[in-house]
Amino acid sequence: MIRHTVVFNLKHPAGSPAEAAFLADAKVLAMIPGVEKFEQLRQVSPKNDYAFGFSMEFADQAAYAGYNDHPNHVAFVRDRWETEVSKFLEIDYEPL
Amino acid sequence: MIRHTVVFNLKHPAGSPAEAAFLADAKVLAMIPGVEKFEQLRQVSPKNDYAFGFSMEFADQAAYAGYNDHPNHVAFVRDRWETEVSKFLEIDYEPL
Repeated sequence: MIRHTVVFNLKHPAGSPAEAAFLADAKVLAMIPGVEKFEQLRQVSPKNDYAFGFSMEFADQAAYAGYNDHPNHVAFVRDRWETEVSKFLEIDYEPL
Repeated sequence: MIRHTVVFNLKHPAGSPAEAAFLADAKVLAMIPGVEKFEQLRQVSPKNDYAFGFSMEFADQAAYAGYNDHPNHVAFVRDRWETEVSKFLEIDYEPL
């Protein structure tokens, strides 16, 4: 199991329609084959300044690679992530 | 639900007995009342340089506060975390 997470901030004002649209449209990622346990999260620790997180799991590296290369993921990164996200950090986990 | 995560590096060499001892001894945290779904994880993304992660969930802020204030947590942070961890980032999530 690989858990892929990304914590991020949007360029949009908090509570704006553009923020809501980004989060709603990002659900297309959950439909990509191999994606399990897709979650949209609010980052709530005062010890960092990120606002949102996505988390998903893959059975193995092949499923993860299939997601990365999927046209819907490539298009979302190119058309939305790269233009609407101001700051992010990817963290991936495997069981120890 | 609050998911408390921390991604971190140890001062100990990779694969060392001191590294293994830290991870084994950290399991005391899983026994603190209110802690659910405690996980010890290996950070595997090449996009950051952290090596390990812990993840746990709490039912609510009261359970999280009870964990933070628990003597076993306070002692672990004071006696092990502050002396053996070189770098860390806490990220906490709630469902969006």
